[in-house]
Amino acid sequence: MTQAASVTAAVLIIGDEILSGRTKDQNISYIADYLSKIGIDLREARVVPDVTAEIVAAVNALRPRYDYLFTTGGIGPTHDDITADAIAAALGVEISEDPRVIYLLLERIKPEDLNEARRRMARIPHGAELVKNRISAAPGFWIGNVIVMAGVPAIMRAMLDEVGPKLATGTPVIVETIAAGRLPEGAYAAPLGEIAAAYPELSIGSYPAFRDGGFHNELVVRGKDKTKLASAAAAIKSMLTELAKARA
Amino acid sequence: MTQAASVTAAVLIIGDEILSGRTKDQNISYIADYLSKIGIDLREARVVPDVTAEIVAAVNALRPRYDYLFTTGGIGPTHDDITADAIAAALGVEISEDPRVIYLLLERIKPEDLNEARRRMARIPHGAELVKNRISAAPGFWIGNVIVMAGVPAIMRAMLDEVGPKLATGTPVIVETIAAGRLPEGAYAAPLGEIAAAYPELSIGSYPAFRDGGFHNELVVRGKDKTKLASAAAAIKSMLTELAKARA
Repeated sequence: MTQAASVTAAVLIIGDEILSGRTKDQNISYIADYLSKIGIDLREARVVPDVTAEIVAAVNALRPRYDYLFTTGGIGPTHDDITADAIAAALGVEISEDPRVIYLLLERIKPEDLNEARRRMARIPHGAELVKNRISAAPGFWIGNVIVMAGVPAIMRAMLDEVGPKLATGTPVIVETIAAGRLPEGAYAAPLGEIAAAYPELSIGSYPAFRDGGFHNELVVRGKDKTKLASAAAAIKSMLTELAKARA
Repeated sequence: MTQAASVTAAVLIIGDEILSGRTKDQNISYIADYLSKIGIDLREARVVPDVTAEIVAAVNALRPRYDYLFTTGGIGPTHDDITADAIAAALGVEISEDPRVIYLLLERIKPEDLNEARRRMARIPHGAELVKNRISAAPGFWIGNVIVMAGVPAIMRAMLDEVGPKLATGTPVIVETIAAGRLPEGAYAAPLGEIAAAYPELSIGSYPAFRDGGFHNELVVRGKDKTKLASAAAAIKSMLTELAKARA
């Protein structure tokens, strides 16, 4: 929508199944990548269990700190789906069955199948906009700066596609990745630190990966100023070349 | 070591690269699974950037609440590796170069290669025990109830293997997973909620997965009491069988 210098966000993953190890979370990295591409800086992520007090505390810790708070999980029809009520409690607003959702559900469910459990999915905090999705009838919702999405990755992605174009976005971050080959971090840490200190507006990271019995490191430069980014990347490449020569 | 009824933990993932979407976190799910198997309940996870104030705030929010706090990331030799100093700041203890780490580093690094950057990996808060690992020379450490590990998954896992046998563990959780086939959540939510209410000491969850154009749901019963778990699982299976018959 509008474009600001910096737009920030947090993610709150709601679900016992992530903390028990049963389900590997896929949503943090997907949302991180999605937001990064549209210029929104993901600054924090949390995972909490299906416990109302924990959800309320996390929502109220995160929503004042960032421009957006995205939540995933806990909006289905079963007893452990308590997110909508927890969000209403956190925001201090009423919640009740929303006729707009009943309408959406009846597009896919026969009236005789609209049982009490399914009606729970129609509980929406007052003042929220619905976030529809192309996969399931039950919507997420958007209230204040909190965007509530499903936990099932395919449905969460469909909801994110729905809200994405409506988000305020910042200047997109440009990323340049430079392979350090087999050079160990300790060999380039000092000169890299000097380059990082010379470009305080950029984020310069060193990311070691360990495979096949050795390190394969990558240096990543991230920032919004194309000229400075190119200049820092050139400094890093020339530093690595010098080091590699000296070690050869 | 000792076995208590309930031992709890939190995980703090430290690293810009997870929040930018560059790196998919693999550590939360691995640690969740590892702890679950030895009877430690992971209750919360957070991801914060490489910013001292954020690390300190998260450490001091989490360590009083849980029996253990595991951190990953930020203990290498580069400028963005600030975890050890942040932990010392959070705990209000001194930090300096630890001769035990210098000794470990010199087992793998030539004295002339032990530059200033690599010496940074020897900065350990006073009073910490070292957490060695079989892959890299640089250790993690354990201070109070905070266990500080590397971010590289292979090294983190080696460190977890090192500390695992020394942790106080709880009664292991038993898990039974029951496939709901193509039954939609809305069809079994009400009877499942009744079963969950009848077994308050168990955690009963419904986990929808969406693939090949349809839902494939699983019901998971978790708990420490084998008899109650078997009884709840039997109730769920018979409920699902009845429902499937009624719909056939």
